[in-house]
Amino acid sequence: MAQPIEDFYAVIPAGGVGSRLWPLSRADAPKFLHDLTGSGHSLLRDTWDRLEPLTGHDRIAVVTGRAHRAAVEEQLPGILDLNVILESEPRDSAAAIGLAAAILHRREPGVIIGSFAADHVIRGTRVFEFAVRDAVEVARAGYICTIGISPSEPSVGFGYIKRGGELIVDGARDASLVDRFVEKPDLETAKEYVADRDYLWNAGMFISRADVLLAEIEANSPELHAGLIELAEAWDDRDRRGPAVDRIWPKLQKIAIDYVVAEPAADKGRLAVVPGHFDWDDVGDFASLAKLNSGGRKNDLAILGEDARILSDAASGIVVSHTKRVISLIGVKDIVVVDTPDALLVTTSEHAQRVKGVVDALKLTGRGDVL
Amino acid sequence: MAQPIEDFYAVIPAGGVGSRLWPLSRADAPKFLHDLTGSGHSLLRDTWDRLEPLTGHDRIAVVTGRAHRAAVEEQLPGILDLNVILESEPRDSAAAIGLAAAILHRREPGVIIGSFAADHVIRGTRVFEFAVRDAVEVARAGYICTIGISPSEPSVGFGYIKRGGELIVDGARDASLVDRFVEKPDLETAKEYVADRDYLWNAGMFISRADVLLAEIEANSPELHAGLIELAEAWDDRDRRGPAVDRIWPKLQKIAIDYVVAEPAADKGRLAVVPGHFDWDDVGDFASLAKLNSGGRKNDLAILGEDARILSDAASGIVVSHTKRVISLIGVKDIVVVDTPDALLVTTSEHAQRVKGVVDALKLTGRGDVL
Repeated sequence: MAQPIEDFYAVIPAGGVGSRLWPLSRADAPKFLHDLTGSGHSLLRDTWDRLEPLTGHDRIAVVTGRAHRAAVEEQLPGILDLNVILESEPRDSAAAIGLAAAILHRREPGVIIGSFAADHVIRGTRVFEFAVRDAVEVARAGYICTIGISPSEPSVGFGYIKRGGELIVDGARDASLVDRFVEKPDLETAKEYVADRDYLWNAGMFISRADVLLAEIEANSPELHAGLIELAEAWDDRDRRGPAVDRIWPKLQKIAIDYVVAEPAADKGRLAVVPGHFDWDDVGDFASLAKLNSGGRKNDLAILGEDARILSDAASGIVVSHTKRVISLIGVKDIVVVDTPDALLVTTSEHAQRVKGVVDALKLTGRGDVL
Repeated sequence: MAQPIEDFYAVIPAGGVGSRLWPLSRADAPKFLHDLTGSGHSLLRDTWDRLEPLTGHDRIAVVTGRAHRAAVEEQLPGILDLNVILESEPRDSAAAIGLAAAILHRREPGVIIGSFAADHVIRGTRVFEFAVRDAVEVARAGYICTIGISPSEPSVGFGYIKRGGELIVDGARDASLVDRFVEKPDLETAKEYVADRDYLWNAGMFISRADVLLAEIEANSPELHAGLIELAEAWDDRDRRGPAVDRIWPKLQKIAIDYVVAEPAADKGRLAVVPGHFDWDDVGDFASLAKLNSGGRKNDLAILGEDARILSDAASGIVVSHTKRVISLIGVKDIVVVDTPDALLVTTSEHAQRVKGVVDALKLTGRGDVL
């Protein structure tokens, strides 16, 4: 298991602010740069550490915004210059992953890429490695392969993947075709899904040969594909990259990879799935962050922040302390308190999804200084 | 009504931190120095403004700690030097009011003093003036007179005064003897009290001739009385005051004026009461502060703080903003958020009384820097 996987290259799209985690997550300090688990490392660094044994340090690319270059390089001292792929502006996941695929395919035809979000939390590294190794074998056989998370509870916060027919691929223990994707269900439906065992959480992990991925993009969005190919051709030429980015990138179709790759491939029977039996969370909001940090103990107060000075009297939920202030919580249940130097959020787990609305309101009312 | 009352002198004891209002109220910025009503003035200043028409600016004394001298003089530019009575350390209300009585009696035998807390809120100034004028006439007749607040609701947060027999005093419209004091009741009992009309809230206002007050102290605590008289004799002599304070003040009995004056006087039929038909609150905790500032509208969010930048989505309760941070509240009901530069409190109206416990815990755990 200690050997890197042959032909494999990891791609980490590190974009997205994480509006539901405001005011912890900001435009200039997005979710992936934070330590949300008390591990002592940012989510990005944890992602890197998880992938490095599978690829080696020289085969992990990060696609991120120009503004985050310095932070990413500080978090990942082992990253090679050529593996830092900078976006001039966000153009969603199909452009980000597609560009990495096009560049890597040009450098190394036949390369198999796996894309893994920079801001998810995974526990159970060995099981994760098993799943990736299986998925790479499925990808080597020509499929686009996703890793579907074996659900630990009937979550209504994630989309699901319905498994179809079994797929026999050499070296992969438990692969299936994907029957279809299903949107976030209601609780009743989610319970049925979990009992069924054929429903897995969609964690947005895609592993495939770069040429297969690009062909799928080409089939569904020829213009996007053409732009990516043109960009990739110019990419490794110092003089040509800048002008090409300026000319092409801002015009690329802004679309999620799910719509331009995963769903069409599923319809054509070209999308496979291997189950991941590890703990996974996308830390979508503070309710999820609270759960993650309380070890599932409902009456605990989870505390995030190195120098936190918390005085709690019968409080539960989560407090994030990014100041040195004394924070006193009395009798508040399932509370969410996020204390930063210029902004304070107080809500409850129940209303955690509404944080995004606050961010929108701050934009509208000209208080973008705290976003 | 515009004339000051003859022989009358107001005394404002301005002590007490107001632990239940931490972290708004602090040792170095106690409750009476805050604007808790959005009036633009501190409670101390509001108290002064209420009394000045009854006394003139030169007949209001403030008894306060040495640490607050500058703040008091800044709040009350009209105060005379000789009316600032400084305590070297807090010795409770009998010593504070007793010292003022002894000093004023020495300066002006026959003076009638009225003591009014520096940190209560009163609305209905004309009605307040009526009550004080009545009480002074009762005091002139030799009684110690209190003003009992006509209850607006069955409060369980205040002590009550039970009226006894009617008292006919020239110039006072509705005076009675005090039958007895009753401790904070339960809700059922409080409801009976309010229906009864003979129960009034004990607001701790006492009006009496200084000599009568001192005689009552002498009868119940001869040592305290001796100390006060000795202090008063030295007070107006620049050379003698300091040494006398150093020698006598720290040894004075620490006791509330209720126990050494009001209750014994009531037992002897020497305590009178006139009803006060004005709105009154001692702003004892944040629940009371929230109520005071919401105009009684249960679903409102009361906001205190000049530069408050609040974003509220379905929140109710109170937020006190003493920083320039953006504060966002989502879906929290009856919440109490107090945001100061070095300490943050989050609780609910229901738990407002428990704030004092936090202050005690901070003392015990060596975090007195934020008290």
